Amino acid sequence: MASLKVPASVPPPHEDAEQLHKAFEDADLAVNILFIIRSSGWGTNEGLIISILAHRNAAQRNLIRQVYAEAHGQDLLKDLDKELSSDFERAVLLWTLDPAERDAYLANEATKRLTSSNWVLMEIACTRSSHDLFKVRQAYHARYKKSLEEDVAYHTTGDFRKLLVPLVSAFRYEGEEVNTMLAKSEAKILHEKISDKAYSDEEIIRILTTRSKAQLNATLNHYNNAFGNSINKNLKEDADNDFLKLLRATIKCLTYPEKYFEKLLRLSIKKLGTDEWALTRVVTTRAEVDMERIKEEYHRRNSVTLDRDIAGDTSGDYERMLLALIGHGDA
Amino acid sequence: MASLKVPASVPPPHEDAEQLHKAFEDADLAVNILFIIRSSGWGTNEGLIISILAHRNAAQRNLIRQVYAEAHGQDLLKDLDKELSSDFERAVLLWTLDPAERDAYLANEATKRLTSSNWVLMEIACTRSSHDLFKVRQAYHARYKKSLEEDVAYHTTGDFRKLLVPLVSAFRYEGEEVNTMLAKSEAKILHEKISDKAYSDEEIIRILTTRSKAQLNATLNHYNNAFGNSINKNLKEDADNDFLKLLRATIKCLTYPEKYFEKLLRLSIKKLGTDEWALTRVVTTRAEVDMERIKEEYHRRNSVTLDRDIAGDTSGDYERMLLALIGHGDA
Repeated sequence: MASLKVPASVPPPHEDAEQLHKAFEDADLAVNILFIIRSSGWGTNEGLIISILAHRNAAQRNLIRQVYAEAHGQDLLKDLDKELSSDFERAVLLWTLDPAERDAYLANEATKRLTSSNWVLMEIACTRSSHDLFKVRQAYHARYKKSLEEDVAYHTTGDFRKLLVPLVSAFRYEGEEVNTMLAKSEAKILHEKISDKAYSDEEIIRILTTRSKAQLNATLNHYNNAFGNSINKNLKEDADNDFLKLLRATIKCLTYPEKYFEKLLRLSIKKLGTDEWALTRVVTTRAEVDMERIKEEYHRRNSVTLDRDIAGDTSGDYERMLLALIGHGDA
Repeated sequence: MASLKVPASVPPPHEDAEQLHKAFEDADLAVNILFIIRSSGWGTNEGLIISILAHRNAAQRNLIRQVYAEAHGQDLLKDLDKELSSDFERAVLLWTLDPAERDAYLANEATKRLTSSNWVLMEIACTRSSHDLFKVRQAYHARYKKSLEEDVAYHTTGDFRKLLVPLVSAFRYEGEEVNTMLAKSEAKILHEKISDKAYSDEEIIRILTTRSKAQLNATLNHYNNAFGNSINKNLKEDADNDFLKLLRATIKCLTYPEKYFEKLLRLSIKKLGTDEWALTRVVTTRAEVDMERIKEEYHRRNSVTLDRDIAGDTSGDYERMLLALIGHGDA
């Protein structure tokens, strides 16, 4: 369930677009008159930006962008980029993007040297629906004139490549049908390979990257029943192995995405110094999907609400933006 | 260019559907009266079936199927299956299917033990456009309640799996942009790996399975210029290696599909005993795509037209069906 709160009566997109444009104009005017400290209340009206964008769904945001471009001959994202800064800017930009475009952007970033992240690639590949992942691949073509799998394959090596390329290329079947015989035989294969510590064996990769989530769930349940341990427990023996960590996270994303995201949020907040990139990514990508479920999980696991932890760890417009997206306060 | 000939004025779909239904009814009536040899002119009216179906494009055939099902509560394909037989039946059935459904059917057949074929899988993956291949994957979900890559991964092993799974999962970029630096560096990688006889090296697989066809073409042109031989010539050294053969065919499909299909047709006809499965597959899958180009190539390479070779090697309704599809005679 989404945490996004959209008001009962949404203004027409041209009104939203005009308000946003005015939010920027205040700034231009201010800059022209005299050098003013932004936080003084002059300058860009961040509150107005939050009050509009953080309370519009993807279709509504797309319409606003469209109308804005028609009226002002400029991409709203470019103007946001010009007027905002730091963590708040990243949150607003990521949120304003269409979900498929946003994932394409994050995935592309994750293949670049300085911002490379196998985790982000895995997360996008495993927690989106098959059709949504395909839309990401289409958006990737349109924006980068290359394919997603092409960049992932080029920028990864070894076991990571073996796992990530089929993950981002998958178009998993999404029905609920389960083949019990197959679940049993593949649980056995997984157990054998893990017992041999052949963690990157092609059979493990094949099963995890091609089976439907329902089938995989049946296989892992059978694993647990037949061998007395969850697969992730058996994969934990070597705590310092990065590939093993990614493999465990892959399994979690495919079977319990809300637990995966809860942990990611927890670590990003409890770290010495907040990991704003992870925090912003999770909030902006899940607010319209399953953030309510993640908040529930977070509360259960930490005995404190996510709202409270975010409020305690962030500040200013960034804090206000995140809290609005996770459904704190009224639309 | 397609070889299919559609008449200038096409009857409305319900008329076509009625004609087809009548073509079957003649047979039922005949069977009821007395035991008659089919070829006597009684029984199912094969000529009528050819005159309609072999001259309707995919959208028109879909409409006929739809109208037929509404009028008779039965799938046209089921009735065709009941009334027709042998090579003619397979040609009519494959042709009548929607292209994505047909490819899904052929690919599924190619993963079954008795009809398994790495070549068919490779052919479908490499000669369809990225969007058409994606439609095949969607049709596969709908029809088999599984994913294409799931079946391919499950039913293949070793080097063949390493090549085929990414091939069928690819969503290649289709623009014409080419990165010349990359073409040079990847030509070098290919040459090094081939010199080392590391034919299934993951870098070879990566380049062939992820790069756009335009980029791959640039890379292989550079290979030829820099190393004095085409890549396929260098891959020919070990003539009996099945994986090498498949690798060469993959490269041909990605860069010169009409040459690949010409050769397939040539071998299927010149064989001791015609290979009707290959012949039917190429004719039914290419008639609406690039059969004119393939015929041109065939004529050039064999100094005889494809029409003549097919007429010389096949007979009866099967011959008439194939000739109609490759554009022989009027619509």
